Amino acid sequence: MEKQHYTDLSRIFLRLSRFSHLNAMASWDMATMMPVNGSQARREALAELSVLRHQILSDKKIARLIRDAEQENLDDIERANLNEIIRQYQNAILLPDSLVEEKSLVGSRCEYGWRTQRADNNWPDFATNLKEVVRVSREEARLRADAQGISPYDALLDIYEPGMTSAKLDSLFGSLRSWLPDLLQTVLAKQAAETVITPVGPFATEKQRQLGLDTMNMLGFDFAGGRLDVSAHPFCSGVPEDVRITTRYNENELLGALYAIIHETGHARYEQNLPRTWPGQPVALASSMAIHESQSLFFERQLGRSTQFQQLLLPKLIAHFGPQPAFELSNLVKLTQRVECGFIRVYADEISYPAHVVLRYEIERALISGDIEVDDIPALWDEKMQQWLGLSTAGNYRNGCMQDIHWTDGAFGYFSSYTLGAMYAAQLFAAASRALPQLENQILCGDFAPLFTWLEQNIWRHGRRFSTSQLITNATGEDLNPLYFRKHLESRYL
Amino acid sequence: MEKQHYTDLSRIFLRLSRFSHLNAMASWDMATMMPVNGSQARREALAELSVLRHQILSDKKIARLIRDAEQENLDDIERANLNEIIRQYQNAILLPDSLVEEKSLVGSRCEYGWRTQRADNNWPDFATNLKEVVRVSREEARLRADAQGISPYDALLDIYEPGMTSAKLDSLFGSLRSWLPDLLQTVLAKQAAETVITPVGPFATEKQRQLGLDTMNMLGFDFAGGRLDVSAHPFCSGVPEDVRITTRYNENELLGALYAIIHETGHARYEQNLPRTWPGQPVALASSMAIHESQSLFFERQLGRSTQFQQLLLPKLIAHFGPQPAFELSNLVKLTQRVECGFIRVYADEISYPAHVVLRYEIERALISGDIEVDDIPALWDEKMQQWLGLSTAGNYRNGCMQDIHWTDGAFGYFSSYTLGAMYAAQLFAAASRALPQLENQILCGDFAPLFTWLEQNIWRHGRRFSTSQLITNATGEDLNPLYFRKHLESRYL
Repeated sequence: MEKQHYTDLSRIFLRLSRFSHLNAMASWDMATMMPVNGSQARREALAELSVLRHQILSDKKIARLIRDAEQENLDDIERANLNEIIRQYQNAILLPDSLVEEKSLVGSRCEYGWRTQRADNNWPDFATNLKEVVRVSREEARLRADAQGISPYDALLDIYEPGMTSAKLDSLFGSLRSWLPDLLQTVLAKQAAETVITPVGPFATEKQRQLGLDTMNMLGFDFAGGRLDVSAHPFCSGVPEDVRITTRYNENELLGALYAIIHETGHARYEQNLPRTWPGQPVALASSMAIHESQSLFFERQLGRSTQFQQLLLPKLIAHFGPQPAFELSNLVKLTQRVECGFIRVYADEISYPAHVVLRYEIERALISGDIEVDDIPALWDEKMQQWLGLSTAGNYRNGCMQDIHWTDGAFGYFSSYTLGAMYAAQLFAAASRALPQLENQILCGDFAPLFTWLEQNIWRHGRRFSTSQLITNATGEDLNPLYFRKHLESRYL
Repeated sequence: MEKQHYTDLSRIFLRLSRFSHLNAMASWDMATMMPVNGSQARREALAELSVLRHQILSDKKIARLIRDAEQENLDDIERANLNEIIRQYQNAILLPDSLVEEKSLVGSRCEYGWRTQRADNNWPDFATNLKEVVRVSREEARLRADAQGISPYDALLDIYEPGMTSAKLDSLFGSLRSWLPDLLQTVLAKQAAETVITPVGPFATEKQRQLGLDTMNMLGFDFAGGRLDVSAHPFCSGVPEDVRITTRYNENELLGALYAIIHETGHARYEQNLPRTWPGQPVALASSMAIHESQSLFFERQLGRSTQFQQLLLPKLIAHFGPQPAFELSNLVKLTQRVECGFIRVYADEISYPAHVVLRYEIERALISGDIEVDDIPALWDEKMQQWLGLSTAGNYRNGCMQDIHWTDGAFGYFSSYTLGAMYAAQLFAAASRALPQLENQILCGDFAPLFTWLEQNIWRHGRRFSTSQLITNATGEDLNPLYFRKHLESRYL
């Protein structure tokens, strides 16, 4: 038994993965199926599970097993898994059980309240809950920061994007600031002269759902191992064996729900194609949040908003909703590549999207460091939206600082993953295009197999085996380079 | 802190109730939502949870807390709760963790296989899985029997119906045998002369669902704390704060799905009206399985198949499906009170239903005692169906011994609850009718409040505070008396 300690550790993590399964499913149900009065009992059950998982993960015997496993003769995968186990253990022991339980409780209360408060534009009640979330997140950040010798906000960033720092983000986002506002103005001016025909609804929810299923099918979603449902905010969750994605339908608008589905299908295909050879082990999980987002943006933007893809989509639109003037290729391309300064992050185009991310990054960093308080958010939001996009959100909380689910359960440090993901997606698509010279034609013919095989080989099958930096270097020949994102935007929009 | 030990015990049971919540929801999802390839991971997650719950419940410190709590100054409710805690603890320590995990695994595998095997009439594959379930259940029964000094089968009966024995069942079912076959023949002869018009379909699933929701609403189901979905076999599960019922639709038949909904609504209203004052405590749970079934049969048969209720239902049928000759009151009453010797227990009428239960009782008792093996079931089933109902199930496993979900996860000892429930329902309806002289008129007017208040006062609000025998004596003035069941059948059908 030369790997006895490693094997014992693996068993503990397999057990943990089963409790994570139950957490994923009960959380999915909460967002999609649960009736309103089920909320309190569900929150309590999830908090109890969260304490249990934390207790198992922070058990002192894990420290002993890690120490002994480090001396064992492990192969590369096992070594990568052990490193990930160490990371999870160290993250866990930083937080006392009471804080973990409190985080789950205040988070699910705030999230649950948000679902109706957002619709009611009810900032005061939301702010009351959010203050509790911020209080707990600051305490979490402080504990993590003290242990790692980094700043509190960087300690939260590290949860979602290991190795990422606010210094690196300042540099990446700073470079965006040097060219993106100009590009935005140029494209807005160029598109101002264009005529775009808006599709005329209503678009019955059930037909939109059928179109979504159809598109998921074309994109290789495995329905024997997943579902499509409805929630307030589109998401992808579940477990690799049973991936649950959601969208939201608006009968007066067609493309929003569809592109949310294409986006979540990118997340889902990554999950459905993670390695199955190391069951329940951290190394078999998806890589960082930004890499996860790179897959959804690869599907939604690089692929989904390309002219070739829309040539495939067009007959489906017509099949489900009949012909209309808007359903013509050049118009569809204009519609899906339309650049507009809008309020809502998830509906933003590729060019204005980073503005939404940078403003959230700046606000949450100041919130965690204590430079600002929850009550300061609406004014700051308004100010930054005016600077970047020329829009005022004064009094418009619903479409301003209350639009996202993320802060409701304390996911501070997450938002930057979206723009990092967009950068990775552009870099990956460029690499795939070099590797597959016939890619454009293949997409035109609906032959996605070469592209998906490329993703499977270069990203999906590796799980968490490599660091983000190694993974992207192996796949593309270099570490993260934001130039690909700029090139992509310039070539598509100028 | 004069009740410190009792309070500590309560906290453990509150924690257990939260894990039961997760179990209920993941099991519900498995039967209603889960895609086919999610099965193995789900089974493993549920088995892990089942081991955890068993470990918590069989922890030796519970024995110490019980011993100390017994000396504390407890009120009646706390005493009843402590007794239920003792019962659960003693049930739990009888079984080793390995057996609990094995039972969960073989049970969910057999149940999952059954869902397709039944449709395929695939007895050999089903029998292979069922043998594993029987092996584990026999082991469980032996362990329970040894500890309690009773027979193995009685030890299983006691799980569902505390205090019930096969001797008592032999007496109750023996008395049925003395009058029920004659009554069945008399009613069949009487009804042979009747003309009954079958409703003509198709009945679109969505319309059937709307009719079901409508009827649940009329029966007081709280949709803020529950849902209606679809599964292979109708059931009621979830937690009191979030009750999930299911039915199954057949577009060619109208009343099956509707009466399944009425049945499950009876279970659901009991759950939704259990006491909320002792959160997570065993005393706040529903009483025995037979009492639970008495509530569903009270709704489905005593109330739902009465002429008065159908007078209310008729306008709903017409509103949802338009008029047709079958939708006439006397015809609807004939349809819902039709007695026929059929294969399927859940579709059986009130008079032939006990035959289905008694044959299952006799077969499972012999199976657990080792007098027969799984391979003997089909022939015995055929023989007993011929004796009671004159029907052969030779080769027809799908509509014979493979029709029920219960044995798939080892719920041996459960079936008799159905006929005990029918007896309790008749006795309760007779008591309610004595207490509410205007009941028939109230039902005719759709005024269910007095009846539901009577049920709430006499059954629902008591949870598990009283033994079955006390509960029924308090509610009706006497212990279980099967004469009410006979009187009910004779007055409705002769």
